[in-house]
Amino acid sequence: MNEPLGPSLDRSLAARYRAVRAHTEMLVHGLSEADCQAQSMPDASPVKWHLAHTTWFFETFVLESHEAGFQPHEPAFRVLFNSYYHAVGDKHPRPQRGLVTRPGLAEVMAYRQAVDARMAALLAQAETHAELAALVTLGLQHEQQHQELITTDFLHLLSLNPLQPAWRSGVPTAAATVPLEWRAFEGGLVDIGHAGEAFAFDNETPRHRVWLQPYRLASRLVTQGEWAAFIDDGGYHQPRWWLAAGWDWRSALGVEAPLYWQHDGTAWTVFTPHGRRPIEAEAAVRHVSLYEADAYARWAGARLPTEAEWEHAMVRTGGTLPQAHGVAWQWTASAYTPYPGFRPWAGAVGEYNGKFMVDQTVLRGSSAATPPGHARDTYRNFFPAAARWQFTGLRLARDA
Amino acid sequence: MNEPLGPSLDRSLAARYRAVRAHTEMLVHGLSEADCQAQSMPDASPVKWHLAHTTWFFETFVLESHEAGFQPHEPAFRVLFNSYYHAVGDKHPRPQRGLVTRPGLAEVMAYRQAVDARMAALLAQAETHAELAALVTLGLQHEQQHQELITTDFLHLLSLNPLQPAWRSGVPTAAATVPLEWRAFEGGLVDIGHAGEAFAFDNETPRHRVWLQPYRLASRLVTQGEWAAFIDDGGYHQPRWWLAAGWDWRSALGVEAPLYWQHDGTAWTVFTPHGRRPIEAEAAVRHVSLYEADAYARWAGARLPTEAEWEHAMVRTGGTLPQAHGVAWQWTASAYTPYPGFRPWAGAVGEYNGKFMVDQTVLRGSSAATPPGHARDTYRNFFPAAARWQFTGLRLARDA
Amino acid sequence: MNEPLGPSLDRSLAARYRAVRAHTEMLVHGLSEADCQAQSMPDASPVKWHLAHTTWFFETFVLESHEAGFQPHEPAFRVLFNSYYHAVGDKHPRPQRGLVTRPGLAEVMAYRQAVDARMAALLAQAETHAELAALVTLGLQHEQQHQELITTDFLHLLSLNPLQPAWRSGVPTAAATVPLEWRAFEGGLVDIGHAGEAFAFDNETPRHRVWLQPYRLASRLVTQGEWAAFIDDGGYHQPRWWLAAGWDWRSALGVEAPLYWQHDGTAWTVFTPHGRRPIEAEAAVRHVSLYEADAYARWAGARLPTEAEWEHAMVRTGGTLPQAHGVAWQWTASAYTPYPGFRPWAGAVGEYNGKFMVDQTVLRGSSAATPPGHARDTYRNFFPAAARWQFTGLRLARDA
Amino acid sequence: MNEPLGPSLDRSLAARYRAVRAHTEMLVHGLSEADCQAQSMPDASPVKWHLAHTTWFFETFVLESHEAGFQPHEPAFRVLFNSYYHAVGDKHPRPQRGLVTRPGLAEVMAYRQAVDARMAALLAQAETHAELAALVTLGLQHEQQHQELITTDFLHLLSLNPLQPAWRSGVPTAAATVPLEWRAFEGGLVDIGHAGEAFAFDNETPRHRVWLQPYRLASRLVTQGEWAAFIDDGGYHQPRWWLAAGWDWRSALGVEAPLYWQHDGTAWTVFTPHGRRPIEAEAAVRHVSLYEADAYARWAGARLPTEAEWEHAMVRTGGTLPQAHGVAWQWTASAYTPYPGFRPWAGAVGEYNGKFMVDQTVLRGSSAATPPGHARDTYRNFFPAAARWQFTGLRLARDA
Repeated sequence: MNEPLGPSLDRSLAARYRAVRAHTEMLVHGLSEADCQAQSMPDASPVKWHLAHTTWFFETFVLESHEAGFQPHEPAFRVLFNSYYHAVGDKHPRPQRGLVTRPGLAEVMAYRQAVDARMAALLAQAETHAELAALVTLGLQHEQQHQELITTDFLHLLSLNPLQPAWRSGVPTAAATVPLEWRAFEGGLVDIGHAGEAFAFDNETPRHRVWLQPYRLASRLVTQGEWAAFIDDGGYHQPRWWLAAGWDWRSALGVEAPLYWQHDGTAWTVFTPHGRRPIEAEAAVRHVSLYEADAYARWAGARLPTEAEWEHAMVRTGGTLPQAHGVAWQWTASAYTPYPGFRPWAGAVGEYNGKFMVDQTVLRGSSAATPPGHARDTYRNFFPAAARWQFTGLRLARDA
Repeated sequence: MNEPLGPSLDRSLAARYRAVRAHTEMLVHGLSEADCQAQSMPDASPVKWHLAHTTWFFETFVLESHEAGFQPHEPAFRVLFNSYYHAVGDKHPRPQRGLVTRPGLAEVMAYRQAVDARMAALLAQAETHAELAALVTLGLQHEQQHQELITTDFLHLLSLNPLQPAWRSGVPTAAATVPLEWRAFEGGLVDIGHAGEAFAFDNETPRHRVWLQPYRLASRLVTQGEWAAFIDDGGYHQPRWWLAAGWDWRSALGVEAPLYWQHDGTAWTVFTPHGRRPIEAEAAVRHVSLYEADAYARWAGARLPTEAEWEHAMVRTGGTLPQAHGVAWQWTASAYTPYPGFRPWAGAVGEYNGKFMVDQTVLRGSSAATPPGHARDTYRNFFPAAARWQFTGLRLARDA
Repeated sequence: MNEPLGPSLDRSLAARYRAVRAHTEMLVHGLSEADCQAQSMPDASPVKWHLAHTTWFFETFVLESHEAGFQPHEPAFRVLFNSYYHAVGDKHPRPQRGLVTRPGLAEVMAYRQAVDARMAALLAQAETHAELAALVTLGLQHEQQHQELITTDFLHLLSLNPLQPAWRSGVPTAAATVPLEWRAFEGGLVDIGHAGEAFAFDNETPRHRVWLQPYRLASRLVTQGEWAAFIDDGGYHQPRWWLAAGWDWRSALGVEAPLYWQHDGTAWTVFTPHGRRPIEAEAAVRHVSLYEADAYARWAGARLPTEAEWEHAMVRTGGTLPQAHGVAWQWTASAYTPYPGFRPWAGAVGEYNGKFMVDQTVLRGSSAATPPGHARDTYRNFFPAAARWQFTGLRLARDA
Repeated sequence: MNEPLGPSLDRSLAARYRAVRAHTEMLVHGLSEADCQAQSMPDASPVKWHLAHTTWFFETFVLESHEAGFQPHEPAFRVLFNSYYHAVGDKHPRPQRGLVTRPGLAEVMAYRQAVDARMAALLAQAETHAELAALVTLGLQHEQQHQELITTDFLHLLSLNPLQPAWRSGVPTAAATVPLEWRAFEGGLVDIGHAGEAFAFDNETPRHRVWLQPYRLASRLVTQGEWAAFIDDGGYHQPRWWLAAGWDWRSALGVEAPLYWQHDGTAWTVFTPHGRRPIEAEAAVRHVSLYEADAYARWAGARLPTEAEWEHAMVRTGGTLPQAHGVAWQWTASAYTPYPGFRPWAGAVGEYNGKFMVDQTVLRGSSAATPPGHARDTYRNFFPAAARWQFTGLRLARDA
């Protein structure tokens, strides 16, 4: 691997391509073929599938349209590693991704290398070919999203293993947090959304005007210690804190704590990449659903911020708000709907984001699993209200 | 029955109480005990349950707190006819409402009469007792909502009868529609939501400011003839028009047309309160899900309006937009979330609306099944994206 | 009603027809239209459906082939009230029987009377028309089976009503039971199955030879008091007593006692036609699945008898074994498979029994809900291993 | 590997142990770790699990009770690789076997080798220790059963791969079959079941007397060509041939042909260990459910034989009936119930067979996947009526 994803002298697209691709492979270093094969649930994908699908993305959306005399690496892969792009054609059923043992991991790695070699030839031209450069950049952003999914999906797989194996060795350094403060914002007529030349997903655009009433935002995320107090106070057993759908969800599944939390009779533990460990009172709570986040906020006499409130606060504080990024995605009160004037990208990549704009909730920020350089204040992550296997937490808000 | 729901000389609360309660009973006139017993699906309720639950609402939220020496009509009814108010206590499971054959219809009608008699005594004081008047008014609005549900739920039940029986005799007069025009609105900083003393649900408040970009709104609803053209053009078979969740829904259920539509080999028919009849090209399409409405809009090169766009247009046009009310609820592009500064009502009635603010979509206007006097421009109806058994249609919008 | 089902001076087929039909109507006397409408689960049917289907049987299998100038009472009923006879054509889906509110109960009763009147004309000839007489007799046996189902299905419906209403007034006289004795049988080469001219279902034939090893049979059924001892001994929590499928069933559903049993903290109660009542230690246990019966037998150091053992014992003891009939159907160790040389009846009625000969277990005897005159020692009742809403109990057996 | 499973000079238990264990490893030769990891459905298990579970069987039932100073190889394996023995304790949920990526394949192979080494020491004593020898023999028979499952489960996994990869190279030699003849048997009082000192499962005992009526048995299995004629004649679309449960199963799943059969527009193909290939008219049909076998027999004017008829015919013909073994398991008309006087083995291994004696149907013979030396005429295989992923076919019978 050439370089870490941090600062680099070579800022060319080709260099960025190599760095992102290498980061993926570094991430899965040490995983066995079995580790890469298994699929823990329909929402998650096997690591091997992530490795292949990100490669498929470059082959299908870059090579196929820009490489002279394009020939597919293996025609069957077009269907096998398509995720959901109807414009590309058929796709293999998502819940059966873990059953595809052939091609094996070695063949998928060879597929990566073959596409990388072909991409290298194209990338030489990309600097002066804006459309090509845009597609490559999209492919890299896409691969970074799958880097996060590799982490969350593989952690979920390990969590179901009764041996509770650790993925990472060592013990993480203990978190230290800051006292909770309420930062006040005046609101008014503000602009949110992405503008400018730098990369952003289509769903972050267009930049547009919204009216915000005055509000306050918590200076940091809710901690595991605070969450334990919510549990101790019977928070999971009092319907008054919960949305009706949340209470039904909680009752049907018998949810009593965040995902990966277990009580051993004495104290709470949580399954992490370092194996099962005691919870850390000072660290941000993670792996909570929107339902839980919303119930907690109500119990705490607060509410979740809207995504506009969140983004405006980040801009106004110039990134000085603790824990804005790199800890946990933060559930908002905003449903994932199009910005006024939203236009999906043209072509098949237009299915990237716009297709999902119903019954999902926006999360802002980024998490410990988000790769370096991928986070943005205007970023709109989204998941169904019941999702918990991502690194999802919350920050409170209040009316002024 | 004392009087129609139209203009009346007696505008007292007592008179309104009598009128609304009588309207419910007029609505179910002619239904057999069997008709009132059956429950067609978990989302729908038996007519008998509606008759009892609306009565339970007055007993529980008005009599119990305001009647001296209150004694329950029948203690078991408190649980049996509770819909979802956790603050009131347990409730009978919703999918089993159709299995409660005892109490029978006669006992439920006796329950209605007994509560009406006790309410009459209270209502004499209500004019000068603001809190009591507010609760009674809420109860009447609540009963009107159930009047609409009686219609939609019973129509759904009949639709599943292989004999396709007609509920209403006669043939409705043919609809005539107006040419589609695009009305332009400038937008800007506008106010939406309810203000003032007249009744509104808590979810319509507080009135607040929003920024609207210029937009255009169709002058009328999408018609059945237009919808048939969408079908003929293969609209139900092209994933590009559909949200991903919508396409999955459509594919899993094999949806090919609006609910109640059938093709007899020659032409489309639709099941209505007057039995199965040919579709009417000029009439508004009804019984479509949000998924279908959204797909249609995309196919038509348009989009659904936000609820703020819809409400602002109604206010600006002073109610002169054809088909604003009384035809079909109109799906919007807005998820059902709280207005800025929203506060649910205090007490158990606070569970009325706020508990449902996730994974639901707002509909505006009102339908042919909405009782007279119940519609408002600020009214926020809401249903899950897949719901079709309500009288749900759509009006298109476009960016300016 | 003309006469009881007991001894009668008029033994003609016409008299028997009137008696059986009248018994059905006596059975449902006092039920409301709502009581007759509701369907408590897919395995059970509404009372109204039973009333119509038994009539449909006579119309379809007797009138249609033997009445000159046959015209259907109502053509739609052919599909609506068909249970499963593919040779007759389509059928209405079983789980939706409770949704057919039209025709109403009065129309169904009119259907009964119309068919009865047309049958009366035919029955005058039946005495000298063997094939006709056989079909009428089958129709009467069929209706008697549905009489038992009316009882079990309606009891199940009432059991789900949170008010736990009693169907029958008064209190049943307390049961008295006899001490358990083990009756020894030598076995050897014996004949079982029906022979002779009297009516029997096709599945009881042909009479055939089987070899039985010596065995012992309990003199009476297992009692509720004995069952309570099984519960107290942890019988529902020790997998060693249970078949694998039975343990899975028990664990998945959390079964802790027979159907309709509840523990009020002090003692067991059971829901009966007389409402919820204390269990009776001396009375036979009822409403147990095959899984439970088999587990109990193992716990008691015994086993269930085969159907051949059961039938042979009844023949050898000449009906003197206590509780042989009229208390509870008795689960056997025999799967429901065809007798050697079995031939289903010709025509559509051949679907009556033979279609179900897989994954069902034979029960012998008859129950308190079996109508007078319907029981036979050769009778083969059959239900899936998990069924509990019938009056099902058990009698133990042991190797000699 | 020391030797093939065929004739050997060394007939010691130790030699047989080595041969059976080596056969398992030969069977999975060439499979990747991914191939060994995936689980295609809850009824099937990963190859890696089979490799571990067969080893667990020896560790738990032989080493634990007979090895001095026994220490578990890895305590967690006791739960992880238990299949269903409640007497042993907890077990890992069957549908999640494919999610256990750690231990990896190498660790499982090391587990095999470690247990083999410890077994070698014990086996030296086994020749003179009857109880130990019996347990080892049971373990070997058990492992042979899992050898067959490795084949059927892995074939099922490959069949779901859209690339339809071949497991075995080359092309099998074409089958040749014999003309169908009907062999007559007189029946009478005959003995069936296992007797003597040679190994048999407990469910094959005790040998006992049954009465058989005269019958005829087909000289060979039903062929693929005959099955194609059944399909061509509309056999899958005529309910009259089907058991009610079979028709429901067929209709719900849209079954149109045996498992692994596909029609490419011109002809039928079938997925086999050699990949997807044309069907062979002369070869025995395989991968049919009991429902299909029973329907076919009825269509052919025949029936399935009972297991007693099958076994008696094999004994009387002295193994000269073509295709008795080694082609396909043959569905019978017999439900899997205990033989008269059946006693399960003592201890935890008593759960081996007796726990499953409900709602399963007996199959007789053996299949192409049955390992050499494992078949017996008294062998009672059993599967649910809908199972098709085994090599299951049928032989017809008729009354004399």
